[in-house]
Amino acid sequence: MAGNSYGTLYKITTFGESHGEALGGIIDGCPSGIQLDLEAIEFEMSRRKPGQSAIVTQRKEPDAVQFLSGLFEGKTTGTPIGFIIPNTNQKSDDYSHIKDNYRPSHADYVYDQKYGFRDYRGGGRSSARETASRVVAGAIAKQMLPEIKINAYVSSVGPIHLETPYQDLDFSKIESNPVRCPDEKSAAIMEEYIRDIRKQGDTVGGVVSCVIQNVPVGLGEPVFDKLHAELGKAMLSINAVKGFEYGSGFSGSEMKGSEHNDLYNPDGTTKTNLSGGIQGGISNGMDIYFRVAFKPVATIMQTQDSLDNKGNIAPMTGKGRHDPCVVPRAVPIVEAMAAIVLADFYLINKTY
Amino acid sequence: MAGNSYGTLYKITTFGESHGEALGGIIDGCPSGIQLDLEAIEFEMSRRKPGQSAIVTQRKEPDAVQFLSGLFEGKTTGTPIGFIIPNTNQKSDDYSHIKDNYRPSHADYVYDQKYGFRDYRGGGRSSARETASRVVAGAIAKQMLPEIKINAYVSSVGPIHLETPYQDLDFSKIESNPVRCPDEKSAAIMEEYIRDIRKQGDTVGGVVSCVIQNVPVGLGEPVFDKLHAELGKAMLSINAVKGFEYGSGFSGSEMKGSEHNDLYNPDGTTKTNLSGGIQGGISNGMDIYFRVAFKPVATIMQTQDSLDNKGNIAPMTGKGRHDPCVVPRAVPIVEAMAAIVLADFYLINKTY
Amino acid sequence: MAGNSYGTLYKITTFGESHGEALGGIIDGCPSGIQLDLEAIEFEMSRRKPGQSAIVTQRKEPDAVQFLSGLFEGKTTGTPIGFIIPNTNQKSDDYSHIKDNYRPSHADYVYDQKYGFRDYRGGGRSSARETASRVVAGAIAKQMLPEIKINAYVSSVGPIHLETPYQDLDFSKIESNPVRCPDEKSAAIMEEYIRDIRKQGDTVGGVVSCVIQNVPVGLGEPVFDKLHAELGKAMLSINAVKGFEYGSGFSGSEMKGSEHNDLYNPDGTTKTNLSGGIQGGISNGMDIYFRVAFKPVATIMQTQDSLDNKGNIAPMTGKGRHDPCVVPRAVPIVEAMAAIVLADFYLINKTY
Amino acid sequence: MAGNSYGTLYKITTFGESHGEALGGIIDGCPSGIQLDLEAIEFEMSRRKPGQSAIVTQRKEPDAVQFLSGLFEGKTTGTPIGFIIPNTNQKSDDYSHIKDNYRPSHADYVYDQKYGFRDYRGGGRSSARETASRVVAGAIAKQMLPEIKINAYVSSVGPIHLETPYQDLDFSKIESNPVRCPDEKSAAIMEEYIRDIRKQGDTVGGVVSCVIQNVPVGLGEPVFDKLHAELGKAMLSINAVKGFEYGSGFSGSEMKGSEHNDLYNPDGTTKTNLSGGIQGGISNGMDIYFRVAFKPVATIMQTQDSLDNKGNIAPMTGKGRHDPCVVPRAVPIVEAMAAIVLADFYLINKTY
Repeated sequence: MAGNSYGTLYKITTFGESHGEALGGIIDGCPSGIQLDLEAIEFEMSRRKPGQSAIVTQRKEPDAVQFLSGLFEGKTTGTPIGFIIPNTNQKSDDYSHIKDNYRPSHADYVYDQKYGFRDYRGGGRSSARETASRVVAGAIAKQMLPEIKINAYVSSVGPIHLETPYQDLDFSKIESNPVRCPDEKSAAIMEEYIRDIRKQGDTVGGVVSCVIQNVPVGLGEPVFDKLHAELGKAMLSINAVKGFEYGSGFSGSEMKGSEHNDLYNPDGTTKTNLSGGIQGGISNGMDIYFRVAFKPVATIMQTQDSLDNKGNIAPMTGKGRHDPCVVPRAVPIVEAMAAIVLADFYLINKTY
Repeated sequence: MAGNSYGTLYKITTFGESHGEALGGIIDGCPSGIQLDLEAIEFEMSRRKPGQSAIVTQRKEPDAVQFLSGLFEGKTTGTPIGFIIPNTNQKSDDYSHIKDNYRPSHADYVYDQKYGFRDYRGGGRSSARETASRVVAGAIAKQMLPEIKINAYVSSVGPIHLETPYQDLDFSKIESNPVRCPDEKSAAIMEEYIRDIRKQGDTVGGVVSCVIQNVPVGLGEPVFDKLHAELGKAMLSINAVKGFEYGSGFSGSEMKGSEHNDLYNPDGTTKTNLSGGIQGGISNGMDIYFRVAFKPVATIMQTQDSLDNKGNIAPMTGKGRHDPCVVPRAVPIVEAMAAIVLADFYLINKTY
Repeated sequence: MAGNSYGTLYKITTFGESHGEALGGIIDGCPSGIQLDLEAIEFEMSRRKPGQSAIVTQRKEPDAVQFLSGLFEGKTTGTPIGFIIPNTNQKSDDYSHIKDNYRPSHADYVYDQKYGFRDYRGGGRSSARETASRVVAGAIAKQMLPEIKINAYVSSVGPIHLETPYQDLDFSKIESNPVRCPDEKSAAIMEEYIRDIRKQGDTVGGVVSCVIQNVPVGLGEPVFDKLHAELGKAMLSINAVKGFEYGSGFSGSEMKGSEHNDLYNPDGTTKTNLSGGIQGGISNGMDIYFRVAFKPVATIMQTQDSLDNKGNIAPMTGKGRHDPCVVPRAVPIVEAMAAIVLADFYLINKTY
Repeated sequence: MAGNSYGTLYKITTFGESHGEALGGIIDGCPSGIQLDLEAIEFEMSRRKPGQSAIVTQRKEPDAVQFLSGLFEGKTTGTPIGFIIPNTNQKSDDYSHIKDNYRPSHADYVYDQKYGFRDYRGGGRSSARETASRVVAGAIAKQMLPEIKINAYVSSVGPIHLETPYQDLDFSKIESNPVRCPDEKSAAIMEEYIRDIRKQGDTVGGVVSCVIQNVPVGLGEPVFDKLHAELGKAMLSINAVKGFEYGSGFSGSEMKGSEHNDLYNPDGTTKTNLSGGIQGGISNGMDIYFRVAFKPVATIMQTQDSLDNKGNIAPMTGKGRHDPCVVPRAVPIVEAMAAIVLADFYLINKTY
């Protein structure tokens, strides 16, 4: 129990169910004196929210953040920042069909088993709506670390992969298309693919890549709290994530040491960066990059068998807004969690 | 700082450098009354230790564990279990060549940058020798949870992949060959490949797969401490790990929802298990399985450029014992960390 | 940083400034299935709130708790319980006189020094108004542990001490008078004393005693997280607390071992209970009792010198509502923190 | 479970039973580059150890600390410092009389109830011998913070109180007598009193006062991790402690606000210091001082009834070395825990 906090010195705790009164959270440990750019926070929220384009769910979530504490005259005070995001869309009747039914590959069954019952409306606590609170905390973490650049983007949708190395991409184009893929050509193909999936009433997974630049040398706490271990945990805690790799990742496991080793330049930088900016769990000053795999959303508009709480199998068809590919909306969430991890290590490692 | 502990109620803290006087650790939270099978612990240690076969490093580490507390008349007392593993091989002169030199893709540089100086002998704290302490804690966690079966094995070495699904493998054969691959044919090819790499003075990476069976429903603490997020962090904290995926993993990101969803049987089990035994961060009673990617060991017997602490680039040839493929030895470490994660959740979730 | 959480498995995190938009908190780890008695929660809130009698501050705080998550159909769901308590009294102009001034024995100066500036309105985060959130969490903890009886009461006000041992008191009378002293005669004298202090525009301290009954044997985690050590920390974290003692306390330091030892009855109970229900940091099944010392409130209606942020000393007279003795209002806060500590250990210790 | 660690960034974990093979611990988070003065550590150990004078137990404990990691060429490396203190006095037969017997006011009974059985030799884990590990960690914390001066001393023994304010004491005299009371006259009376108690085969409690000087403004993390709350927890975690008060303490509860408030000097210091150097949980730069109450040691050389594990009451006479007054030996332990708390906050608060 009590798994709803992340971080040691920059600590985020979240609460809220999909269709409860409000979501929200507490950011504890944010340094004082940061003049918060509220528009920048709203921008991140708008990137995550449903209904932003034709290829994502049309469910409307205004997602207006209300800050309740920790700010004074526009600046952070060093005391905990409490915030809420009211749920304006609490129509419970939408979800009566799942009250006693467990949808395949949803958390309905395990919540009932673990807790005895559940708030079934919209998935309750297991809904990805919870990530809205993470985006708030991440947006503030970004403002705490203005020198660090975090850019995530969609690098694959289903079978369509963007193979271009990140160094050859123009990150300023990430927001130029609804897929959030900085390569226009790939983005167009991905978008077309998602439209097709949408027509089928199906969903598809994908991969978000993330690049973090200007990180100082020295972040990370071996042997257990290595920088990439915390990044991995943070990413794996996002709904629908199935895998995490950094630097050479799984493909690095196929390589020889003589190929994989990153040789030094005289200034301590390296000629290659298969290490992904992290050595022995500690940032080495090179770009940090990693990839996060998302499974397809479980709610499809096709008919599939579900289980009810009396042990009966019965066909069920997904209701509600259809989200054929959640991966573009996951981009700001990946960035948010990366920023939270960095903010925490920044505070931990700038000590004594 | 202070990243050398893992766990909340089953908590392991480790200490020790590769060539210091001793390694060791403290296991805090182990329940009382467990009759420890010390031979089983030594068996796990022997699986991890160097020199066990022709394809791994020949460095000798007797790795005899001395328990100093927490046991009385052979049983755990519920108080912290302190243990040490003396280092018998402290020949510091082996390492004078790296005193002022940073080996490529080792942690030498970042330790010097972060801490100002370092115990350079054998990599000091960044050496994988630290994992010996984890194996002790994992071996005890296994004995705490006798009903849970944890089987890890090598599923790829460099470009050679074992494609057989785990359900078709005979785990009793894992220890029958030095590669720890339960498929004899694949094992033979992998072994041959490693011998070749060895002759080249090179190293190669690989993948360890792990299957956990008989896990009860309900382990895991959303939203941040999801079961797979903690497993991921634990695996990523092992030396040389570059990636983690569970269930369908990265390949799941290429699938459609209609293919990926695991349909239920009337008893709550599922017909397929692309979810990898975890839904919404909580175990669902199905087999948990995941894959861990290891990069090739950075120390090769070929000459490569290194950097010295005055900014000079100079060629360096690896000295000491050569470990062409660390992946077979990583198998017990993966199992140990899995057992530690489970023990912790077992204590956390069987509450109230 | 990040000191706004208490607990491991029953974890409370609070936010909020005295005159911000709202206070609130998140209770993480509350078990599922508890039918919450909201009136009982409001009752605890009413015990803490100002304006309840003639001898405490008349500032009005409706303190209506709004639960935003973690409840469904009246029962706890096992997910985090988010709640807010809106501040209805946000008249900032009341506090312009302390904007640049540090009141003696208030936290104004240290907050400015630590954070660079502060929300000066009503003491901001350092206001005891924060304890309202603790009372919510404590009231829920009480409902989680219905078998455990927690009774706190005022045992001294200034120089007036109630010397009667708790065994001879009738706890049902605690709420029968505004002082919350179960001895009517002492209560009358204390009340008279407080009225006199009030007339002087002064304040006075006091002591809250607390008795916890029906605690099972075995709660507490030596060697650092001893039951009384956590109780002590929890009490010392309440505003204005200067001391904590349990069992024989400071007077026990004057005794001989032959007098102080609690001899056993055959059933494991003890004839005396100078130990205060705790041996070696673990509950022994006897009544737990302890005393908490509160200093007088620093805000007095007399004129005292203050310091401004330019280094000038200037006389200042307290404004706002006058709280001559905060101790009766501290009674429910002491109970709340005791309940939170017990709930946490209950979850931690009923494991495996 | 898992209560054997203290601290967040300067974290100490201890292990070891009184008569096990060794005690020890791990200090995680000690900054790198500190040239350790091993003699200073041994000096602190010698202050805690039994047999140092005629008025304490004569049990011999050489208490030689062996450092196993975290040091290189005499300096801390920033990696965890593992250490052991071998037990040279493991004569188990001394303790057969308590194997099945619960001594009054010892932890024998609760350990058996909580854990099912116990290492009964010398009290096992509940023995104050555990504090030897704390002294090691505290001695290193002191060296990490050379500017901070921590002086503890005995201010009362049984009914004999040293009333002199600490400002009028000469701390350099603390070590000049076996009682560790800096006032020679009081020390002589206390020593005489202890000798008399010794003759009676009895024991007596006392109070240790502690003064911390040169603490910077800003240490402490409200609202739960206030500086005095952490100091209180740390002190209460020491064996035999029954109470903690800081600044005006319990006597402050008898005062009026007009008397208790500390008026400012223009430089932010205060004319009086009833606050004890802490406001709102944050150090204010004035001297921190507090008092810790110790009960009399439970083992007396007189005959008292004990309980056996079959429910029989039977008289028992204490065996082993007699420790009539543990308070002088507690002085270095109080200092050690204070240093650990400060080191932790020092690392936490010098961030960003």
